[in-house]
Amino acid sequence: METIKEGDWILIRFKDKRYLKRVEADKNFSYKGGILYFKDIIGKPYGIRVGDLLIFKPTLEEIILYGIKRETQIIYPKDTFYIAKKLNLEEGKIFLEFGTGSGAATMVFSSCLGKSGKIYTFESQERIFKVAKRNLEKFGYTHNVVMFNKPFDPKEVEDISFDAAFVDVREPYPYVEQVWKVLKPSAPVGFLLPTANQVQELLKHLSPYFGDIEILEILTRYYKVNPERFRPEDTMVGHTAYLLFAKKISM
Amino acid sequence: METIKEGDWILIRFKDKRYLKRVEADKNFSYKGGILYFKDIIGKPYGIRVGDLLIFKPTLEEIILYGIKRETQIIYPKDTFYIAKKLNLEEGKIFLEFGTGSGAATMVFSSCLGKSGKIYTFESQERIFKVAKRNLEKFGYTHNVVMFNKPFDPKEVEDISFDAAFVDVREPYPYVEQVWKVLKPSAPVGFLLPTANQVQELLKHLSPYFGDIEILEILTRYYKVNPERFRPEDTMVGHTAYLLFAKKISM
Amino acid sequence: METIKEGDWILIRFKDKRYLKRVEADKNFSYKGGILYFKDIIGKPYGIRVGDLLIFKPTLEEIILYGIKRETQIIYPKDTFYIAKKLNLEEGKIFLEFGTGSGAATMVFSSCLGKSGKIYTFESQERIFKVAKRNLEKFGYTHNVVMFNKPFDPKEVEDISFDAAFVDVREPYPYVEQVWKVLKPSAPVGFLLPTANQVQELLKHLSPYFGDIEILEILTRYYKVNPERFRPEDTMVGHTAYLLFAKKISM
Amino acid sequence: METIKEGDWILIRFKDKRYLKRVEADKNFSYKGGILYFKDIIGKPYGIRVGDLLIFKPTLEEIILYGIKRETQIIYPKDTFYIAKKLNLEEGKIFLEFGTGSGAATMVFSSCLGKSGKIYTFESQERIFKVAKRNLEKFGYTHNVVMFNKPFDPKEVEDISFDAAFVDVREPYPYVEQVWKVLKPSAPVGFLLPTANQVQELLKHLSPYFGDIEILEILTRYYKVNPERFRPEDTMVGHTAYLLFAKKISM
Repeated sequence: METIKEGDWILIRFKDKRYLKRVEADKNFSYKGGILYFKDIIGKPYGIRVGDLLIFKPTLEEIILYGIKRETQIIYPKDTFYIAKKLNLEEGKIFLEFGTGSGAATMVFSSCLGKSGKIYTFESQERIFKVAKRNLEKFGYTHNVVMFNKPFDPKEVEDISFDAAFVDVREPYPYVEQVWKVLKPSAPVGFLLPTANQVQELLKHLSPYFGDIEILEILTRYYKVNPERFRPEDTMVGHTAYLLFAKKISM
Repeated sequence: METIKEGDWILIRFKDKRYLKRVEADKNFSYKGGILYFKDIIGKPYGIRVGDLLIFKPTLEEIILYGIKRETQIIYPKDTFYIAKKLNLEEGKIFLEFGTGSGAATMVFSSCLGKSGKIYTFESQERIFKVAKRNLEKFGYTHNVVMFNKPFDPKEVEDISFDAAFVDVREPYPYVEQVWKVLKPSAPVGFLLPTANQVQELLKHLSPYFGDIEILEILTRYYKVNPERFRPEDTMVGHTAYLLFAKKISM
Repeated sequence: METIKEGDWILIRFKDKRYLKRVEADKNFSYKGGILYFKDIIGKPYGIRVGDLLIFKPTLEEIILYGIKRETQIIYPKDTFYIAKKLNLEEGKIFLEFGTGSGAATMVFSSCLGKSGKIYTFESQERIFKVAKRNLEKFGYTHNVVMFNKPFDPKEVEDISFDAAFVDVREPYPYVEQVWKVLKPSAPVGFLLPTANQVQELLKHLSPYFGDIEILEILTRYYKVNPERFRPEDTMVGHTAYLLFAKKISM
Repeated sequence: METIKEGDWILIRFKDKRYLKRVEADKNFSYKGGILYFKDIIGKPYGIRVGDLLIFKPTLEEIILYGIKRETQIIYPKDTFYIAKKLNLEEGKIFLEFGTGSGAATMVFSSCLGKSGKIYTFESQERIFKVAKRNLEKFGYTHNVVMFNKPFDPKEVEDISFDAAFVDVREPYPYVEQVWKVLKPSAPVGFLLPTANQVQELLKHLSPYFGDIEILEILTRYYKVNPERFRPEDTMVGHTAYLLFAKKISM
């Protein structure tokens, strides 16, 4: 049975709060209810209760929400989980990402592609590129990721036919034809666009390269965990981004 | 370059409609705008335009929405895409599903687990079991799927420690402890529940087995694809199910 | 106690369906479960059960949803109820409407203004104007309504200072300054706009005339009426229109 | 033309914020951008710009959101605006409210009923009753309001046949029959219920008294006021309450 080890990332749940911490024998976690000494949990099974805390093995979603350093607005798991499977990502697929950002989406895509898949990701801003690199290394999502600190450059990937692509940059319009060129026939592509104006503008650039267009938003509505007073949470995330999906047309 | 072959499943887009068809050289697709003879597209690249039709390679989502036979209400991709990644599914994971239904969710989970992963899925109703079996075989999602035509039975999987589990049956309450037993420490579990009453009831049965509970709904809002008149679609899916996630507590 | 009389409008509820009918002694209502002869209910109290039917006095919402003739997309009560009170309509207020449409919104506004209030409403298309006129007459919403079959024309109302205004026309931009002129200082104005493009365009025309701008959508989510299986309806209205509210700035 | 007078309530808009203040010649409004001396705006028209401030005449919605003292969770205008018109409130109607709360809903109802209408409102808790009384007096909503500091008591209104009723108390179940008795035939009734459990429980008590039941939630989605970057606000109100409407059945 897997037990908590020195160097592991753990997810600590205290009341309604969650904390992502790295276990180091000589360190501790200080919180409103007291102090958790990490040496006391090393060797114990995951999922244990320690006083008023619960200690879990973090899921990928929790690593993204509570663990990664953010230089940009991260893409929410609600969106990336959908994007990854909508784009048909699975073991062995070769994937293109333009706009690495903080690497949150990259991690989700990497987790879908397995050992034999590969993701090539481009980020033009050096500061953001470095943050993403550190995040991916910190949480072990590097084995199938190739990073470029530059705008999408077809020359870097000229021998590759991509199974799918995802674009998350402010102005994706000039790259539509270039992305089209490196994709396999019929390959799906996704775009993430915070504003309606970007969607309206992108729609004008997709033809004749991409068809079968879909545009949607994903909303998550959380509920209070009380069987006697079941009701949605008082506030919710109102908007993250519009998602646009399309497929390559062969010409 | 991959071309359309005899026996392939294709996704035909005509105006706002999508059709999933199998290519057979002596068959055709008859639609309002005319007839597509499959022999005319064999050997052609995917993504081609044929008159007013577009011919794509279907994604997993399209197979689920347009291809599988439904004996039960299927679980929507918007839900299963989220569930699969929320439960941390990736290459090599060993997964338990109780409530195979039409197999739509099973396909999504299978696509996440890769060649080295495995999904064990239980379905008590024989009629539904057979439909799911046929759907999975028809679309090639069998290599990592083990099916049982019975309610969840721990004896069938007694040597296995599962990485995660998903339960989609009308009355999951009596199975909570049994599912808990076969999971690894801290492993995530997901439940799909159409009514608030089921959520309220399940919440009473989770303690002391599962903690870190989350309940949510996923709503997708689609937009019309017209840059001059950008606006959401007139109608939307209002509800499919409540999703409940939790993690195994070690006792 | 008020009873059903010859000439009354009644709301018939049969299973999940609602019908708005006029009581005429020699007529009847034929439905899947049988026939209701109106002479049998004349003199009976409202709210009675007749076999598997329920006979109610219609509310304004029901008159709008089931009674009026529609030449245009009607504005939903969910929107007009909000607009009417957001614009502060109450007994005695003097109100301007541009874009009468089918008269559905006009009825709601009329019902807020009482005997001493007044609504001046403009509709440029003759065909639509006539439908609205008939709808308002048919259901008795004429006593405080003045109708014009023309685009908004300030000369028709030049002696009036309006307490509030509502504009529902495809291209409201050229009318912004004219509407501003006939409003009292600080008076609220509302616009109904189906597309994001219209909102984006209107925003460019509001300054310097109107400030304190708010833009919102109203979504209604209905639930099934079953205490044992409480859950939202499967489908919902996804979009009717964006609402934009602002207030007159004094220059 | 109406001008700002000593004693008026005004709505001050500064950047994204709104403040409701009473004009007193010797007082001022101090804010991040400076100080507004009220004597400087007395006699000026509403809607004027004073430096970086805009001074408006408050709408009823603004009085509720920014002006009233809250002892309980107030009912949002999005809900009360809908309730008021759904219940057919207009000039001259006689209305019953049980659960005055802070008086926010009472004000909206009062504004619909005009001089000849009347609202009878019951509040059992003295502390809350006093707050509501003060709120209604402060903003002038008393002329058609009769308040009782007790639970709903049919004896207080035994000669009245109500046109409609609204109930907003934690446990409305014991009052269903009593409310039914004082309503006119076919009269509509509304209930506001924060939790699903309350809805489920109430549904069991409505028969045989009320029929034509509808349950819904109202969601408002606000947008940023920027034509170049049109998009919904990042967060939204996720839930206030379930609304249940029904009509009196005659027995």
